[in-house]
Amino acid sequence: MDNAVRNRAWRMRRKPAGLVQQDDLELVTEAVRALAPGEVLLRLVHVSLDPGQQVYMQSTQELPGGTIWPGDVIRAWGVGEVVESRSDRFPVGSHARDHHGVAGVQEYAILPEAALILVDPEAAPLNAHLNILGMPGLTAHAGLSQIGCLQPGETVVVSGASGAVGAAAGQIARIRGCRVVGLAGGPEKCAHLTGELGFDAALDYRSGRLAADLTLACPDGIDVYFDNTGGEILDICLGQMARKGRIVFCGAIAAYGSGDSRGLTNYLRILTHQVRFEAFAYYDYEPHFASALAELAGWMQAGLLKHREDVAVGLENFVPVFHHLFTSGISGKLVLQVRDGVTR
Amino acid sequence: MDNAVRNRAWRMRRKPAGLVQQDDLELVTEAVRALAPGEVLLRLVHVSLDPGQQVYMQSTQELPGGTIWPGDVIRAWGVGEVVESRSDRFPVGSHARDHHGVAGVQEYAILPEAALILVDPEAAPLNAHLNILGMPGLTAHAGLSQIGCLQPGETVVVSGASGAVGAAAGQIARIRGCRVVGLAGGPEKCAHLTGELGFDAALDYRSGRLAADLTLACPDGIDVYFDNTGGEILDICLGQMARKGRIVFCGAIAAYGSGDSRGLTNYLRILTHQVRFEAFAYYDYEPHFASALAELAGWMQAGLLKHREDVAVGLENFVPVFHHLFTSGISGKLVLQVRDGVTR
Repeated sequence: MDNAVRNRAWRMRRKPAGLVQQDDLELVTEAVRALAPGEVLLRLVHVSLDPGQQVYMQSTQELPGGTIWPGDVIRAWGVGEVVESRSDRFPVGSHARDHHGVAGVQEYAILPEAALILVDPEAAPLNAHLNILGMPGLTAHAGLSQIGCLQPGETVVVSGASGAVGAAAGQIARIRGCRVVGLAGGPEKCAHLTGELGFDAALDYRSGRLAADLTLACPDGIDVYFDNTGGEILDICLGQMARKGRIVFCGAIAAYGSGDSRGLTNYLRILTHQVRFEAFAYYDYEPHFASALAELAGWMQAGLLKHREDVAVGLENFVPVFHHLFTSGISGKLVLQVRDGVTR
Repeated sequence: MDNAVRNRAWRMRRKPAGLVQQDDLELVTEAVRALAPGEVLLRLVHVSLDPGQQVYMQSTQELPGGTIWPGDVIRAWGVGEVVESRSDRFPVGSHARDHHGVAGVQEYAILPEAALILVDPEAAPLNAHLNILGMPGLTAHAGLSQIGCLQPGETVVVSGASGAVGAAAGQIARIRGCRVVGLAGGPEKCAHLTGELGFDAALDYRSGRLAADLTLACPDGIDVYFDNTGGEILDICLGQMARKGRIVFCGAIAAYGSGDSRGLTNYLRILTHQVRFEAFAYYDYEPHFASALAELAGWMQAGLLKHREDVAVGLENFVPVFHHLFTSGISGKLVLQVRDGVTR
């Protein structure tokens, strides 16, 4: 039995050959089905745009995180207001975000209560739950905890450092007593890192002399490299890892959508310097979400952890806004505002 | 004050540009100095030839394991007889091997007692202490223990599987209840793996269809890849790792001496499948040497762990014999017999 509500959703028409294009998707209007026990109908206010979506859209094999196939709604983290509910934990009028990035690029999402977390729109802006208090903050926390094994005084390099995950990772590493060098594109972003975000140093990867700059900034090598870019930047940092250094491989925006990925030529450094190069699954960190979120919220309230969002408006603009992720045009967490509502 | 003994030793003349050549080294005859307290003069019977020596000879930067510089004796593991001693633990006439691979490609080595381990020439052939009861056996044990985290029933792939470390790693993985696929060059070596050594399967990497053969042999992906080759074989295996797979990066013979290393193009698999790609330092495993050696010796005596040595004779033949490591001409642990003596 259908619900009276009509939903608009971005569904995949065909696998994108490279970076997703408008013709690969379609914005469909469809009925919303009735809720089953334990389910909630969330009217989305914001959805999160993340580089990883490109991976799941483009892959033609089933990935552990879940490939997006033709016919599927494009998956995305989302935050919104409960407008119908068959869950006592999420009454109508409360706000929630999803835990698993399945809310989707659409106006309404039906989600089981197990996939949701209550959020208080008075305690923090809704947007923050897609940023420092959501997947990006938890991803940074997980990567640094599970793979980074940070020790105070160590040198940490973060690429994509002005992006949502990178900014969180760099700030958390500083809070944990490390010296943090951020890599970003252009002098403005670099100034933001060393100014607003308190990084110890920032290097412009577009300078054409990143390897030399890194050697100067990290004369004893890199203890922990938190990588969000992959590609050439990863290869350069790999070549400068310290003995027993750890590479937290979190993202590879430089390789997404490009169809081919540049090979890593400096991989012998792993052997000669006993490096650990590892990736992790965000969802495996779920047992730690509650304690990590409490820690992140505490740091945010203490002014130690800052966040910034770039908000684009209009569900229909999904594709061109998503492209901004790959053109370095943004300098904060990119979110799409699906509708008016609580927009603080 | 010099000793009456004269030593012949291979010393580096200049850094090799690629694979070490005769002209890069010189065989010098020199006096042996008097022993200090706690030191032992070992008359070497066998020294070990290992791919890693090329790395330490060729590197122009100081590596954590210790680069070999012009003037240095070429480092090597060695086993021999104590001919002079200022250590109560190593009386004249006893046999010993060195713990740290510093005996060197020479006739006599002066070593501190802390760098030596007593060996019983009646219990096992002296050669075995440079193979399954020495660095190769301990390296395989260390890599599988520290990084491999083997679970019974998992699929383990070993490259360079007919080499000393590879043969040990594959056999240990089988003893630990895993399904083991070996990669080696040519049908004879492959037959040795599945016959004598009891591997579950063996693939000829020269077939030109390694990727397809691997997919058939490991339909659910590779849980643990023990890599001794680097290069293209590593890249192919990397592309077929299972979720949460571990790559034990132990050696890269395909890249040694070649001057350039082929880039790893499949590195995004690390991200999509949460792979751990890690190397380890043999010498960091020292606290576990005694227990690991006891385990290895027990398996050997029970007939579960086999070993085979290729013995070349004559110190003066070091360079051409060393080249055999890189031409796939050998099928066992390569050792150089420095002199007659206990050769069983």
